[in-house]
Amino acid sequence: MEHGGDLISYEKYYKGKLIDYSSNINPLGPPRGLRNILANGFNNIQAYPDIKYRELKASISNYLKCKVENAVVGNGAVELIDSFTLLAKRVIVFIPSFSEYEKRATINGKKVIRIPYRDFNVDMGALENAIQNGDLLIIGNPNNPTGRRIDKIELLAIYNLIVSSKAYLLLDEAFFEFCPDSYDSIELFKKFKYENLGIIRAATKFFALPGIRLGYGCTSLTLAKKISEIQLPWSVNSHAELAGKYIFDNEKYIRESKEYINEERKYLYKELSKISRIKLFYTETNYFLIKLIDLNEEYVFDFFLKRGIVIRKCSSFIGLDNTYIRVAIKSREDNKRLIGVFRELEVAA
Amino acid sequence: MEHGGDLISYEKYYKGKLIDYSSNINPLGPPRGLRNILANGFNNIQAYPDIKYRELKASISNYLKCKVENAVVGNGAVELIDSFTLLAKRVIVFIPSFSEYEKRATINGKKVIRIPYRDFNVDMGALENAIQNGDLLIIGNPNNPTGRRIDKIELLAIYNLIVSSKAYLLLDEAFFEFCPDSYDSIELFKKFKYENLGIIRAATKFFALPGIRLGYGCTSLTLAKKISEIQLPWSVNSHAELAGKYIFDNEKYIRESKEYINEERKYLYKELSKISRIKLFYTETNYFLIKLIDLNEEYVFDFFLKRGIVIRKCSSFIGLDNTYIRVAIKSREDNKRLIGVFRELEVAA
Repeated sequence: MEHGGDLISYEKYYKGKLIDYSSNINPLGPPRGLRNILANGFNNIQAYPDIKYRELKASISNYLKCKVENAVVGNGAVELIDSFTLLAKRVIVFIPSFSEYEKRATINGKKVIRIPYRDFNVDMGALENAIQNGDLLIIGNPNNPTGRRIDKIELLAIYNLIVSSKAYLLLDEAFFEFCPDSYDSIELFKKFKYENLGIIRAATKFFALPGIRLGYGCTSLTLAKKISEIQLPWSVNSHAELAGKYIFDNEKYIRESKEYINEERKYLYKELSKISRIKLFYTETNYFLIKLIDLNEEYVFDFFLKRGIVIRKCSSFIGLDNTYIRVAIKSREDNKRLIGVFRELEVAA
Repeated sequence: MEHGGDLISYEKYYKGKLIDYSSNINPLGPPRGLRNILANGFNNIQAYPDIKYRELKASISNYLKCKVENAVVGNGAVELIDSFTLLAKRVIVFIPSFSEYEKRATINGKKVIRIPYRDFNVDMGALENAIQNGDLLIIGNPNNPTGRRIDKIELLAIYNLIVSSKAYLLLDEAFFEFCPDSYDSIELFKKFKYENLGIIRAATKFFALPGIRLGYGCTSLTLAKKISEIQLPWSVNSHAELAGKYIFDNEKYIRESKEYINEERKYLYKELSKISRIKLFYTETNYFLIKLIDLNEEYVFDFFLKRGIVIRKCSSFIGLDNTYIRVAIKSREDNKRLIGVFRELEVAA
């Protein structure tokens, strides 16, 4: 299991509809109104998307509060990650983190340097020792699967190191909007004009649109130009282009989604903290990393699957062994069911 | 102008709706019925596409008449072209041809060898001299912008050379269905199990879906596995996935589209042959390459633009100079208008 969300592979093991706790999607679903927008978008697919994505980038830059010249778009965040690795000499990743950082780097022929997190925090000493001219450091912010966002002061220190080393920093912020009361990296790095920096976000998680494939971000003028040059032409499809011109204006939806996740995070944290046999890690986003105290991921995965819930096994994350799982934060109804199964697990043989 | 279809860049120069003769799309539009299929597909974008594209590949293999294990899919044909170049040592292209062959190879760090077509035919001697172990030869079949398909016997000779050289052949057949009474490469190479061979097609042109981004193809078991491994996860979006499960079953639409294009090709060929100041090349597909006898592409482009038609300038094709243009084959009504403007051009200053 390299990625979550692959329910098709597990349907045969359960009679009934599976609940997906393996991918971390906003339980409120996409913004209301998008259905009609897309239903009227049939004409759009009969022409190529705008090869320069002029309107889409305008909409994104307005949402991110950056200049349109700094905006980049991709076929999901992962295409942008891929493009950044293609521009790098070597790629540095912290582990555990999203497997595609290392995978895209390797496919693109780049040497990968792994640095373990120290108690899920950045090891500055190790980073200072490792970093070289032309390196690309990729950090999940918040990081998947640990759920932690880097402290603002620490992030500025990392950025200083990056700039003085003539290296590059890529912040994968695909889960940014789920983080309550956190600083905004795009605002934070405005005065640096995003030099040697990329900040990536996506419609996938917060706007609940994993199928539409829309990633976007903000980077320096130089890097934005280079990224556009190396990307596949028309890599963002017309439906994603259309959605991207609509979703970001939904202030009410955005506020309600944040509040909803905030409530459910507190609720799940409180309830799951009571469960023995697991160690629950604190999270800033919409998923929990869990350490299994006396069980392994296979057993727990099967235990949940038999009860209609697909969780994420975590041994595929380099840096974690088979005693970790990850669960999303979903609707109250689903979360109650999840808690119920954890309670069953407590007393299982 | 690196690609056709970029109407947005020219809208300001013409009051009214531009007719796009710069991209080569089936004038009948997408299969009827697809609108409803996609309108009901809103739920699909709330989950990831199937990361293994099981149903989509089944549908494609059924249409192509190949085994499902031989099927590959991509974010447009261009993602598959990109993946094939990534697997190659060097890339050989004939010129003039689709610019992305060379571009993707270069971006992926591969050396590119250009061999000029001889009167738009493959120069076997030059190919024999150039080809080396591990090379990828990419051929448009039919080729863009020349409109020619390789003779079957010649193609088999090229394939023999490829196999004996331990090289690879990629046939870009994005325009295949427009070619009347031509052999089917997928049938032709079945007995060779597509070893060292890729055959790529797309929903873009024939199914009139440039915005949906669906490329697909057929290759050896070994290459199909490698391609899937190096592709971006979820690179084909849910709408494309949904469309691909529907469009290929429309036998009536497919037949009618072929007949329509066949009629219009004959009509346009007959009428444009009468125009002085241009040399019209014979085509097997849905676009014509045209040599301007005493004019250049800029003048002719502007001449058509002022009259509401966007044509394709061809100097961006390496191997052609600024005395070539390309025009699509569209509806009878549009084609009449195109012919009318060519007649105006005949008598222009």
